[in-house]
Amino acid sequence: MARVLVPFAEGVEEIEFVAVVDILRRADIEVYTASLEGREVTGRSHIRIQADAELGSVMNQHWDMIVLPGGLPNAHLLRDDVRIKTLVQRLHEQDKTVAAICAAPTALAAYGLTTGRRVTSYPACRPEMEELQPSSVYSDDAVVEDGFLITSRGPGTAVAFALRLVARLCGEDKAGELRQAIVA
Amino acid sequence: MARVLVPFAEGVEEIEFVAVVDILRRADIEVYTASLEGREVTGRSHIRIQADAELGSVMNQHWDMIVLPGGLPNAHLLRDDVRIKTLVQRLHEQDKTVAAICAAPTALAAYGLTTGRRVTSYPACRPEMEELQPSSVYSDDAVVEDGFLITSRGPGTAVAFALRLVARLCGEDKAGELRQAIVA
Repeated sequence: MARVLVPFAEGVEEIEFVAVVDILRRADIEVYTASLEGREVTGRSHIRIQADAELGSVMNQHWDMIVLPGGLPNAHLLRDDVRIKTLVQRLHEQDKTVAAICAAPTALAAYGLTTGRRVTSYPACRPEMEELQPSSVYSDDAVVEDGFLITSRGPGTAVAFALRLVARLCGEDKAGELRQAIVA
Repeated sequence: MARVLVPFAEGVEEIEFVAVVDILRRADIEVYTASLEGREVTGRSHIRIQADAELGSVMNQHWDMIVLPGGLPNAHLLRDDVRIKTLVQRLHEQDKTVAAICAAPTALAAYGLTTGRRVTSYPACRPEMEELQPSSVYSDDAVVEDGFLITSRGPGTAVAFALRLVARLCGEDKAGELRQAIVA
């Protein structure tokens, strides 16, 4: 069974976080939510969510995918946490999938992982994405896949993003089945 | 400022709950989340969410709208709670908006509020909706408005549902502005 890590911190965009966890769990993927510190996280719209664990206690486990949700300051806190950088680089070296949505793709750009890759992000983050990695190819598509990277734009694209992650881990048939089950 | 109550209980569909709270709060609407009991609720996909209050402590306040999220057993727990029935009937009598998504429109049908109204629900709930209120007019649209009622289908229609609630409370321009801000 695939194991997916979703780290998150204060200011996380709740729809982006929940759409990924909910839809991947519906696909019987083992999803772990891990806060950077403490167990309760308050999202950008003031919804308080309990993490399954603190990041420190699970980061050395085996993961098949890491997904970075957006929302501020969450995306910046993730970007600036050396454990997240270490995890993302480790998954990249292991040819695992690294995914990010909204403001979080800027973390992947800051780590140097978007060089020469097709990517997207929250529209307002485009200048930062291009300044960090001038050789990346910015797309306005709702969800963009390029090799080990999957990126997406915002709360309104979060369901499509999550379905794409299911397709990557479980195949298109499973993603199609879920799309129907959630009326997407 | 409009005040909206979102009651919820064990098994709530997390995307439906969060999309409504997040998007309405982005519109500067005052949204209160109220659990039927206790303060922590575990959703259908095992995400634990803290309520702002217990229902008993806020149900006699003034509300401009009540929104029932789906997910099981949440939708059945809401339907069977006499306080929810009282609140929904009070808002209906006051010409306020009553909204429900996924399995939750069955509560409105059980209360007799969908008689002769255009409604929708989670597709699998259609037979129950029609059996409870044979005179209701079932629609397959993602979001259905008929007078004081707004109903919708599932997690994949939750963002459109929330934007429709914003349009009802704040007008189409505000909803359009938000649609762009969340990349929907």
